Amino acid sequence: MTQIQIGSTLVYDVRQTTIFLLKIAATSTPHQVIANESLQLDPMVNVEQCQVGLEGNRLHRVVVEPCRLSISYQATADLTPELDQPHDVGETPAAEMPPEVLTYMNPSRYCESDALAKFAFDEFGQLNPGFSRVQAICDWVNHHLSYTPGSTTATTTASDVLTQRTGVCRDYAHLAITLCRGIGIPARYVSGYAVDLQPADYHGFMEAYLGGQWYLFDPTKLASTVGLVRIGVGRDAADVAFSTLTGNATLLEKNVWANAVDGGLPADQNPAVSTA
Amino acid sequence: MTQIQIGSTLVYDVRQTTIFLLKIAATSTPHQVIANESLQLDPMVNVEQCQVGLEGNRLHRVVVEPCRLSISYQATADLTPELDQPHDVGETPAAEMPPEVLTYMNPSRYCESDALAKFAFDEFGQLNPGFSRVQAICDWVNHHLSYTPGSTTATTTASDVLTQRTGVCRDYAHLAITLCRGIGIPARYVSGYAVDLQPADYHGFMEAYLGGQWYLFDPTKLASTVGLVRIGVGRDAADVAFSTLTGNATLLEKNVWANAVDGGLPADQNPAVSTA
Amino acid sequence: MTQIQIGSTLVYDVRQTTIFLLKIAATSTPHQVIANESLQLDPMVNVEQCQVGLEGNRLHRVVVEPCRLSISYQATADLTPELDQPHDVGETPAAEMPPEVLTYMNPSRYCESDALAKFAFDEFGQLNPGFSRVQAICDWVNHHLSYTPGSTTATTTASDVLTQRTGVCRDYAHLAITLCRGIGIPARYVSGYAVDLQPADYHGFMEAYLGGQWYLFDPTKLASTVGLVRIGVGRDAADVAFSTLTGNATLLEKNVWANAVDGGLPADQNPAVSTA
Amino acid sequence: MTQIQIGSTLVYDVRQTTIFLLKIAATSTPHQVIANESLQLDPMVNVEQCQVGLEGNRLHRVVVEPCRLSISYQATADLTPELDQPHDVGETPAAEMPPEVLTYMNPSRYCESDALAKFAFDEFGQLNPGFSRVQAICDWVNHHLSYTPGSTTATTTASDVLTQRTGVCRDYAHLAITLCRGIGIPARYVSGYAVDLQPADYHGFMEAYLGGQWYLFDPTKLASTVGLVRIGVGRDAADVAFSTLTGNATLLEKNVWANAVDGGLPADQNPAVSTA
Repeated sequence: MTQIQIGSTLVYDVRQTTIFLLKIAATSTPHQVIANESLQLDPMVNVEQCQVGLEGNRLHRVVVEPCRLSISYQATADLTPELDQPHDVGETPAAEMPPEVLTYMNPSRYCESDALAKFAFDEFGQLNPGFSRVQAICDWVNHHLSYTPGSTTATTTASDVLTQRTGVCRDYAHLAITLCRGIGIPARYVSGYAVDLQPADYHGFMEAYLGGQWYLFDPTKLASTVGLVRIGVGRDAADVAFSTLTGNATLLEKNVWANAVDGGLPADQNPAVSTA
Repeated sequence: MTQIQIGSTLVYDVRQTTIFLLKIAATSTPHQVIANESLQLDPMVNVEQCQVGLEGNRLHRVVVEPCRLSISYQATADLTPELDQPHDVGETPAAEMPPEVLTYMNPSRYCESDALAKFAFDEFGQLNPGFSRVQAICDWVNHHLSYTPGSTTATTTASDVLTQRTGVCRDYAHLAITLCRGIGIPARYVSGYAVDLQPADYHGFMEAYLGGQWYLFDPTKLASTVGLVRIGVGRDAADVAFSTLTGNATLLEKNVWANAVDGGLPADQNPAVSTA
Repeated sequence: MTQIQIGSTLVYDVRQTTIFLLKIAATSTPHQVIANESLQLDPMVNVEQCQVGLEGNRLHRVVVEPCRLSISYQATADLTPELDQPHDVGETPAAEMPPEVLTYMNPSRYCESDALAKFAFDEFGQLNPGFSRVQAICDWVNHHLSYTPGSTTATTTASDVLTQRTGVCRDYAHLAITLCRGIGIPARYVSGYAVDLQPADYHGFMEAYLGGQWYLFDPTKLASTVGLVRIGVGRDAADVAFSTLTGNATLLEKNVWANAVDGGLPADQNPAVSTA
Repeated sequence: MTQIQIGSTLVYDVRQTTIFLLKIAATSTPHQVIANESLQLDPMVNVEQCQVGLEGNRLHRVVVEPCRLSISYQATADLTPELDQPHDVGETPAAEMPPEVLTYMNPSRYCESDALAKFAFDEFGQLNPGFSRVQAICDWVNHHLSYTPGSTTATTTASDVLTQRTGVCRDYAHLAITLCRGIGIPARYVSGYAVDLQPADYHGFMEAYLGGQWYLFDPTKLASTVGLVRIGVGRDAADVAFSTLTGNATLLEKNVWANAVDGGLPADQNPAVSTA
């Protein structure tokens, strides 16, 4: 078991009544136990907690009057990922996928897998099926993109990234997801906290459905998959934006951290990691 | 109550083993009772029926060996829509929307409501809230687009449609959905059968979340909302394609019909129609 | 006659041998006499002056070794624009346009007049032909866009601007040019110096071919058309970028100014202004 | 010398007064002598011949009243291309390019070399400069695209092609041009007649500026560069559309042919071919 301390602080200048939908709290799963959790808003406002979507992503909804709003979240995550041997993990035939997985084959806002299907098939269609093929996709994405903060915006898509060849974590994940779907592998976006991420921020990574379960990948290779703490999953970043506002507010500060408590993460032997 | 006989026939040339995901069967809801239903495949193959997504869309999955495949669906739908007075139907504040509705505020593959938010707000942000505002959006879409079969493809988005100003039913629905989301009204895509649609085909329309429930709109104005028989709902057409193939098959024929059984549809007084 | 003093200073950090193509010098035309011109580079390097394209845009080409490079340009422009009555200026039939004008009917990098032709025709096709129709296009652009520095990039096109509804001077000009071409009016991009522009910068505006000659328009309405000093013309901003680099250099400073010498500009009675 | 007989017939249904701009006549150059030329319209109408642009492309302008219009063009082209050894042809440094060539470094409507510059540089920036590098780009384009009539439209760009991986001759040329410009090699579009092209049609190919002159390439590899008869050149297909209409007319028939007169083309030893 690995224990991670996570947290984030957001400060907003709220200029009129604004509804915040926050997706910053880690989720509990059989592989990820969340403890010592606190979410504090200053000034204090009523916080409604709900779960949304098939995957039960957590969502905190607050209505805030004009003020300088500070949002502080922290928790401890106990991770017990399932570690498998990559060569043991195959692909799941489309005829056998559970219905709820099929939706992650569909194209989505930032992952135009319909438009990029031929590209994906030409590049990766002939590789041996299985975990290694998704790894090859992530390697390709990592190799062909330059990690360049500021080079993309909130509306940048996988097609954009494929042509401009630059991006940040969310763009890497979107492109890898798109290429997986393009060759018939269900894939989805995961938002979370990553241990020792530089520069510190919320992280975006991905999962592919292989061998009957979801396996984690980080196409940026900036974080270890054994130290990723899940916030939520979705088709792409549109589903798990850390904050969605209706009203008028400006983000003034954002601090995000994730630290392994005892002696850091286990040395990564590059296992296949499943935590969903 | 209105009774509608619906059906469709699809013929495919299947050239190698192909997995079909079919979304052609009408769904049962409190406002739509499906009876006398049959789904026949020739040659006979094993059909797996499942439900997918939050909304429980029906899905038939079949694995087919090379052949000339004929798929015939028919059923009777008894419709008892809730009819309200448009001026009684207001908008639901974002702070009060049920969590499961919030997902229909997110941008999706063919509905880039993030990129078009300013456009939507500039054009429709100042109108009085409520049913009439969504109606104004649908009128705008209907007025500014030319219904032009063949002018769009499977990857055409709302942004494309907004600039090129042509499209078919799915494009009309995508643009109207996008503009609703852009001003903060949850909206979703509905696929279905439409009475006396010309040219006959599956139809694509939309629902907006108003006054605590989902109301139907057809931005093409080609069909009456009191004669729409629902197949499925989704964020956009990506979720409810009538057929998704993995393998190699070509559609040779498609026939779709929907007829009111006794004396046609009730004269449409343009009520607000809710059937979800 | 109006006399304008213009100038600009650019400072670059040049990190390896770099070729600069500079388009910052004002051009001489029958309506614009350039005097007292100087172009100084520090450190001194050999400057090659050439003319490019059909319109004879001036271009200064320099090859610079690693250094901190300062480029200073200044000149005096004596403007004697032709001022016409807008209601006297009609459109030129396509059958009578000079061949060299026809090229400005073609779509270009940032002006997708092919894709936006139906939009343009639907919005402006029914207006009375002539100067007033181009003015209506510029008014529409001005009314529907918000001038927002930083909202667009070097690859933003007219279609992008039309949907996102924000931009800067180059985006305003691109959209107005595109809409003119879309209804069959030749239009081109003009780069230049604008008197008292706030914030001070090179300016981008446009010309439409009407009544047998080119007339100036500024869709941003940030500058008077009687005080615009021309640098160059092109199909769009791709042709008249103030600086194009091959090598490795970063712009550190940019200062641009243009001042009317005696008592400012003549009071603008909104004449139709032609200077080409 | 190779002699080619070329020709094309276009039949239009003209429904209202329509202005045609035709770019179907072969151009005369020192390497391409045009003889026995005829352009016949039935019914007879007045034909205005003009030259447009820097390169002097030929243009025939006609104004046609409602009718069934037949346009027949034929000519004989005597080709004496300059044939060089590929390994003798290097790149021209940007500091030494003639000014009129620099414009072919700019991005254009269908060749977004600004957006694809990083892609081009990553893929081809490290190859040895010269003819072989442009050949490598053409080979890459040929290898990664599937020639698929109907897969693209009149507004498809190089970025679109790069992601969808299908296209026709014009798309192949656009992508190759874009990649050349992206690494600093001037490149332009050439329209023309190609001997024994299957399926018969006008052809689109490209030229790159190398070693002080323009060399021909056909990224589709469907035609020999020693049998290409030039109609016109431009930044991309926007400049050399075979027909541009203002009015209302529909193309009913198109026949295009090009045949080598005596014993076919010389066996192609893959020389570097320059004819501009």
